[in-house]
Amino acid sequence: MIRRLCVIGTGLIGGSLARALRAAGYCNEVVGAGRNAEHLQQAVELGVIDRYDTDLARAVEGADMVLVAVPLGAMQQVFGAIRGHLADDAVLTDAGSAKGSVIDDVRAAFGEVPANFVPGHPIAGTERSGVEASFAELYRDRRVILTPLAHTDAQATARVRAMWEAAGAGVVEMEPGHHDMVLAATSHLPHVLAFVLVESLARMHDEQEIFDYAAGGFRDFTRIASSDPVMWRDICLSNSAALHAMIERFMNDLQALDEAVRSRDGERLLEIFGSAKAARDRHVEK
Amino acid sequence: MIRRLCVIGTGLIGGSLARALRAAGYCNEVVGAGRNAEHLQQAVELGVIDRYDTDLARAVEGADMVLVAVPLGAMQQVFGAIRGHLADDAVLTDAGSAKGSVIDDVRAAFGEVPANFVPGHPIAGTERSGVEASFAELYRDRRVILTPLAHTDAQATARVRAMWEAAGAGVVEMEPGHHDMVLAATSHLPHVLAFVLVESLARMHDEQEIFDYAAGGFRDFTRIASSDPVMWRDICLSNSAALHAMIERFMNDLQALDEAVRSRDGERLLEIFGSAKAARDRHVEK
Repeated sequence: MIRRLCVIGTGLIGGSLARALRAAGYCNEVVGAGRNAEHLQQAVELGVIDRYDTDLARAVEGADMVLVAVPLGAMQQVFGAIRGHLADDAVLTDAGSAKGSVIDDVRAAFGEVPANFVPGHPIAGTERSGVEASFAELYRDRRVILTPLAHTDAQATARVRAMWEAAGAGVVEMEPGHHDMVLAATSHLPHVLAFVLVESLARMHDEQEIFDYAAGGFRDFTRIASSDPVMWRDICLSNSAALHAMIERFMNDLQALDEAVRSRDGERLLEIFGSAKAARDRHVEK
Repeated sequence: MIRRLCVIGTGLIGGSLARALRAAGYCNEVVGAGRNAEHLQQAVELGVIDRYDTDLARAVEGADMVLVAVPLGAMQQVFGAIRGHLADDAVLTDAGSAKGSVIDDVRAAFGEVPANFVPGHPIAGTERSGVEASFAELYRDRRVILTPLAHTDAQATARVRAMWEAAGAGVVEMEPGHHDMVLAATSHLPHVLAFVLVESLARMHDEQEIFDYAAGGFRDFTRIASSDPVMWRDICLSNSAALHAMIERFMNDLQALDEAVRSRDGERLLEIFGSAKAARDRHVEK
């Protein structure tokens, strides 16, 4: 149980967790925090939070659980603002899509990574954003990855785990660098490919016509290119090393396919497509 | 109205057209044709066709409309088999995803491209295949591209247009080479990217884990990688020049993005992502 949850950043991610925990009766009070009083007021009106404060230091006072769910580019500033104001029994966690960079941000703000900080990442979201897009079921049957460090307090980790489980998620732990590689492969690279494809087509001579003939597959394939550009800029900057490695890997494989296309090597093409279809059918629910 | 429609290849594409035209009362009789008697018998049982013949020359006898909806790799053989057996008033059309190659196949089989041949391509489909996946509404509000040549009989074109319109589609005409470029951009390239991505991840050390953490965006993005590998091999071989040009273009753009990631050029990243989101939101229904 959480006595007082402080959610810094009450958008889709923070707002949905607040909704889920309230629906589960898992916390007594939710305090919202952020820069924009209008957004926070909207969160109150939607019943997502009980009250709010735009002063982060005041907002975290007396909270036994603090979730930082702001864009990666704003993390360090938030950590700096709450430093020295957390309650003695407070657990601090975040929801950033890259973990190495958030840990660096915490270290830069606090001087060291506090034992009560538990880095976290819920693998959930939609291409929409903002508190009006939040809903209590966002995390149901989704995974949350926690990446505690060697000196992270085990009880703090257990409390963050219990919180996400109360929201319906399954929780796993892994090493931060491994998290960043896995996410670069399964999320950051696909987003980048969708963005680049749409942007590439938009610069073609026949832009309107090109998109006119895009069928259902194209809509699905490019849905993630409607995601928030600022958020994705931050993710690319925060996870640049792992993402770059995945882009290079992908370009090598695309080059190999292109060579099969040019040399009309049907056998090789069938091998690649067959292996891809088998892997997707094996691993990914339809 | 069609007196007797012969559908060579009663899979998703041919089967769905037959269903749509029967539902619209637009044809008196549908004759199915193909190599596999079992599949054709299933099409009869599903009410998609009235009867069938595995002898293509016999199947087209007396038909005033013949649709060839077989994989691109089988087109030339089919045209060779029906040559000399078409009725005097027959119109011949196809549903291939590449048009230059089908026109070449017709030329190779007939010696020249007959005036009653109208190359066509319905921009519709799902990642499933086979007659059991066919449904009458597949073409409703979809586009069909016809690519008649200069000497194509205008009345033949008009009859093919009327047929697709009866199935609920909107019909446009364009030059074959232009069709192949547009489709390489909006369909063939995205499929290739999805196939390569999934295959690339499947070869990673932590294959199972990688796919475990794939979220909703990944499922949408890679849905088209569950498409039929043989069909996509044929498409890549049939439209290799246009596809290669699009892959090269895409690789240049991905390279530029990679450089922005490596040099941590946030402004450039935001520019690319913002332009992509704007284009998708502008052109593609959600």
